[in-house]
Amino acid sequence: MKPENDLLLRAASGEKTERTPVWLMRQAGRVLPEYRAVRAKMGGFKELVETPEFACEVTIQPVDILGVDAAIIFSDILVIPEAMGLPYQMIESKGPWFEKTIQTEKDIQDLRVANGEEDLHYVIEAIRLTKAALAGRVPLIGFAGAPWTIFAYMIEGSGSKTFSKAKKFLYTNPALAHLLLEKITQSTVHYLKAQVKAGADLVQVFDSWAGVLSPEQYDEFALHYIREICDALSPLVPVTVFAKDAYFARAGIAKTSCRIVGLDWTMDIAESRAIVGPGKTLQGNMDPCLLYADFETIKKETEKMLRAFGPQNHIANLGHGLYPDTEKDKVRCFVDTIKAFRF
Amino acid sequence: MKPENDLLLRAASGEKTERTPVWLMRQAGRVLPEYRAVRAKMGGFKELVETPEFACEVTIQPVDILGVDAAIIFSDILVIPEAMGLPYQMIESKGPWFEKTIQTEKDIQDLRVANGEEDLHYVIEAIRLTKAALAGRVPLIGFAGAPWTIFAYMIEGSGSKTFSKAKKFLYTNPALAHLLLEKITQSTVHYLKAQVKAGADLVQVFDSWAGVLSPEQYDEFALHYIREICDALSPLVPVTVFAKDAYFARAGIAKTSCRIVGLDWTMDIAESRAIVGPGKTLQGNMDPCLLYADFETIKKETEKMLRAFGPQNHIANLGHGLYPDTEKDKVRCFVDTIKAFRF
Repeated sequence: MKPENDLLLRAASGEKTERTPVWLMRQAGRVLPEYRAVRAKMGGFKELVETPEFACEVTIQPVDILGVDAAIIFSDILVIPEAMGLPYQMIESKGPWFEKTIQTEKDIQDLRVANGEEDLHYVIEAIRLTKAALAGRVPLIGFAGAPWTIFAYMIEGSGSKTFSKAKKFLYTNPALAHLLLEKITQSTVHYLKAQVKAGADLVQVFDSWAGVLSPEQYDEFALHYIREICDALSPLVPVTVFAKDAYFARAGIAKTSCRIVGLDWTMDIAESRAIVGPGKTLQGNMDPCLLYADFETIKKETEKMLRAFGPQNHIANLGHGLYPDTEKDKVRCFVDTIKAFRF
Repeated sequence: MKPENDLLLRAASGEKTERTPVWLMRQAGRVLPEYRAVRAKMGGFKELVETPEFACEVTIQPVDILGVDAAIIFSDILVIPEAMGLPYQMIESKGPWFEKTIQTEKDIQDLRVANGEEDLHYVIEAIRLTKAALAGRVPLIGFAGAPWTIFAYMIEGSGSKTFSKAKKFLYTNPALAHLLLEKITQSTVHYLKAQVKAGADLVQVFDSWAGVLSPEQYDEFALHYIREICDALSPLVPVTVFAKDAYFARAGIAKTSCRIVGLDWTMDIAESRAIVGPGKTLQGNMDPCLLYADFETIKKETEKMLRAFGPQNHIANLGHGLYPDTEKDKVRCFVDTIKAFRF
């Protein structure tokens, strides 16, 4: 069923639309007092992710409150390692932490390939509920972490500035690294297919730690697996690949079967258009810190961004997730500026 | 007085040299057991930085132990905020922490412009001692943080993944930001000139947090001040600018009066050469994680890097500081491979 507001899907497919669609990474989150209220009831972030009714509720909040052109299911990229056999905790103001990490071949063999429907039933159920509750108002975006980023957490066991343990593994055990990456990729394909079956209209692959790899390592250990995911999902729905900080990866990503390439704010728009080519849609790329500025500056810079992307093949977004201390009215100003703008 | 081994300075000036010179960021540091021994005697990192005799000792260690072609004075970029009136602590395994940060115009007015000779006498004295102790064996490199990076710590008060407080300041108080950046720049110029007077043969400007800015903000809030520093120092010694993660800044940096442009491992060598042009020397750019690999891989990848840079206008280095858990013999393998290689 075609959503009532299908701007996102039409822009994704390269159609010329009456205006540029907009959604925001981390739009369902602490920036909304309404989210914080649900969160206070739930206790922790993971409880929220694992409770379909509440995940559904906070997924829809930004559609109502901010007026964005898409919902993105409220979840976490680290549900995949957990579904494969590595549970994690989300530690307040510190981030994710894994008690067990991957060090040996046996550790990898002990992992299972996740089955989306069963191992991640709570996400799939949240998507079904959200899809029903949205009643076709806007498209619903599903997502997963890219294999390299998931791999990095599974080896490192937590966030890191350098992910040097994960990179050490690539240099010292390339064959084992590929074994693990392949297992993650299979899990991710199952998971994303289950998301689409449950109602996701588009899926985004987040390669959050793409930027710590050299271009050569990116080709070998990251892009290869992204390509597999794109090839498995693209026949079903449009796929977005967002490789944060990996400016060098744009050309390679453009050659996959993805429909949309995500950009962060360090990536020049005209240069990115030239690299990616006219056949794909770009998504992004405002610096989330712009939303700390005054309304006039937000409006001016947002319009400048829209003009730089042009009237077609663009989905407006930030170049990273919303920062939690952003004022709601500043977020609305960004969204409203995009919705009011006409070429 | 020309150093006995002046490969670094000849490569910096664009001369064709008999082989590529090599030094390593953070070569004086925890990677050497000999450093850890001095450090154990001293208590903390800051005590070491502030005690010229010991700073001198650890500065010379890698020349003796690793056989590198340059010494770099053992110090810290955060001595500048401290000299301007913002003291900091270096907290073990957490990083720097400032009790007071900059928030208002008055905070900025209360800062003094640092005088290198007096406010940073301990670094200047360490340079004098080191210069004498080196007895002309290899050149001595001085350094400072780039104004944007120093500014970021002064506002943020510690390290950060996003430096969103510092960036918020740029968006909300651009005029005050320039006031502070100018004061940092003046301090840095005084400081680097004092370093040169005391014997530094080359100075490097580290813009460690360059990569969190958009290209436009980089031009306005970072590059402008780097240019001032280059113009003040270039008549005295060769200047290296290393803007980590700021691939977009290479063209702008190439247009300053610096002699050497530092690259990290995400920056393609041929592309960087094309952007920077033949008139400058490039420095870098091996991934420090390569040194976790086996000797054969280190040798092969290092030779590949040397060939990619070519026989001229290159100073070999890593693309970031040495990671502390790297084995000394692996570091030696990198250095020895470079010293043995002939085009």
